[in-house]
Amino acid sequence: MHKPVLHTLLSPRLMDLYDVSNSIVVIIDVFRATSTITTALYNGAEKVVPVAGVEDCIAIGKKLDAVTAGERDGKIIPGLQHGNSPAEYPRSFIEGKTLVLTTTNGTRLLHMALDRNVAEVVTGSFPNLSAVCHHLIASEKNVILGCSAWKDRFNLEDTLFAGAVISRINENFNIRCDSSLMAEDMYRLHANDIYSFIRKTAHWHRLSAYGLEKDLEYCVTADVANVLPVFKDGALRAG
Amino acid sequence: MHKPVLHTLLSPRLMDLYDVSNSIVVIIDVFRATSTITTALYNGAEKVVPVAGVEDCIAIGKKLDAVTAGERDGKIIPGLQHGNSPAEYPRSFIEGKTLVLTTTNGTRLLHMALDRNVAEVVTGSFPNLSAVCHHLIASEKNVILGCSAWKDRFNLEDTLFAGAVISRINENFNIRCDSSLMAEDMYRLHANDIYSFIRKTAHWHRLSAYGLEKDLEYCVTADVANVLPVFKDGALRAG
Repeated sequence: MHKPVLHTLLSPRLMDLYDVSNSIVVIIDVFRATSTITTALYNGAEKVVPVAGVEDCIAIGKKLDAVTAGERDGKIIPGLQHGNSPAEYPRSFIEGKTLVLTTTNGTRLLHMALDRNVAEVVTGSFPNLSAVCHHLIASEKNVILGCSAWKDRFNLEDTLFAGAVISRINENFNIRCDSSLMAEDMYRLHANDIYSFIRKTAHWHRLSAYGLEKDLEYCVTADVANVLPVFKDGALRAG
Repeated sequence: MHKPVLHTLLSPRLMDLYDVSNSIVVIIDVFRATSTITTALYNGAEKVVPVAGVEDCIAIGKKLDAVTAGERDGKIIPGLQHGNSPAEYPRSFIEGKTLVLTTTNGTRLLHMALDRNVAEVVTGSFPNLSAVCHHLIASEKNVILGCSAWKDRFNLEDTLFAGAVISRINENFNIRCDSSLMAEDMYRLHANDIYSFIRKTAHWHRLSAYGLEKDLEYCVTADVANVLPVFKDGALRAG
C-alpha cells in the first residue's frame, strides 16, 4: 500500500527545505499557544483568530467584538484583555465568544504555512493529541509536523509532541526523516517522566520564572481538551 | 566557578541565532568529511585544505601539488583524483602530502564559521572524539558544536557525535540548550547500539546505496584516528 509521507519540521527557519504543498501542516506550539487554542475551542469558543501583531489584535478584536489576548514576558500586553494561559479560558468565560490571540512563535509559523499551497492547517498540542492523530490517519495525506520552536531555535516540548504523534501513527505513514526518528525516540524515552523532564527545558526555565508551572504541566497532559482546531476563513474552529 | 557555555547547532541555517564570537566552533560532518579529515591527518598528511567548489579544488591542488578529492552522489568528481572515503587515505599513501578536499555540507559550515569572529575552528568526528573532548575541556572557552546537517536538514549522525562530546564534558560547561539536551539523550540512548541505529538514518540509506557500509561503520567508531584538526592559515593541521 502506498503510504503518505510524514516529516517533522524542527524550526520555522527550515520550512523551505520541505515540500509542504498539498500537505496537512500541524502547527505545534506546546508552551502555550496551541494548548490554549484547543482549550478555548474545547470550552465552546466559537473561533480563535491568530494574529501576528498587537495592533492587529486590538483592531480585529474591536471589529469582531472579541476577547483579545497576548503576552510578552509572562505579562498581558498593554491594550489587550487577557493572557496566553489555557487556564484563563474556562467554559464559563469563553463559551460562544471569539478569541483574538497574538503569540510570537506559533502564530508566525501558522502564517508561514498559510502563505504556501498547503492542503490544510490544524493545530496540535498534548491536550488534543488524540484528535490530531485520528485526523491525520483518516485524511491519508502527506503531513508536516511543524514545531514552532522558540525564536527559531529547536525546542524540546514541541519535539516531544511531534514524537507523541509519530509514536501513535507511524504505521500509517512513510517516515524516512531523521527529525521524526529523533522526535519519536525522545518521546518514547520521556513518555513516563514527562513532568520532570520538561523541567529541564529552556522554555520551562523562562516561563517558570513567571509562576507558570501549573500551566506548563497542563500543556503536556494528553487529551484534556480533545478537539481539532482547523484553520478556515481566517480563524481556527473546532473541526 | 564560572563555566563556559556550550551550544549545539543543528543546522547551518540556524547559525545566526547563536553568538559564536570568541567561541571554539567544532565542525561536525560524520558522514564523512570530518571523519576523513582526521584520518588523513592521523596518517601523516601535512595538511587538509577544505574548499567549497570543484574548480577551486583543481586550481589549489595544482598550485600546492596536492591530492585533490571530492565526491558527488558516491562517485569521484570528474577532474579530481580521489573520493571522500577515509579508507582512501592510509599512511602509505597520504603521509607528508597535502589533501585538497571539497565536500558539500561540512565545508560550507566551516567557511560560514570562518566568516565570523570565532576563537578557533576545529573538526570533530567519532574517530577523534577524545582529542576533541580533551581540547574543549583544556581551552575553557565557549563552544559551538556545529552539525553540518544534510542540505541544511537535521541529521542524526552529527547529532549523535555532539551528544557523545556532551556526555563526556558536560560537567565542565554550562549547558542550557534544548539541542544539547536532546543530543546527549540521543547519544546515551544509542551508544550501545550505534552500528544498528545508524542503519535507520536518512544518510545511511543514501550512502549505503553506493556500497559504503564499511565506511559508515568506521565513521561512528571512536578514537581510531585520534588527532585534532585545527584550522590555521587556510588549512586544517593536526593540532
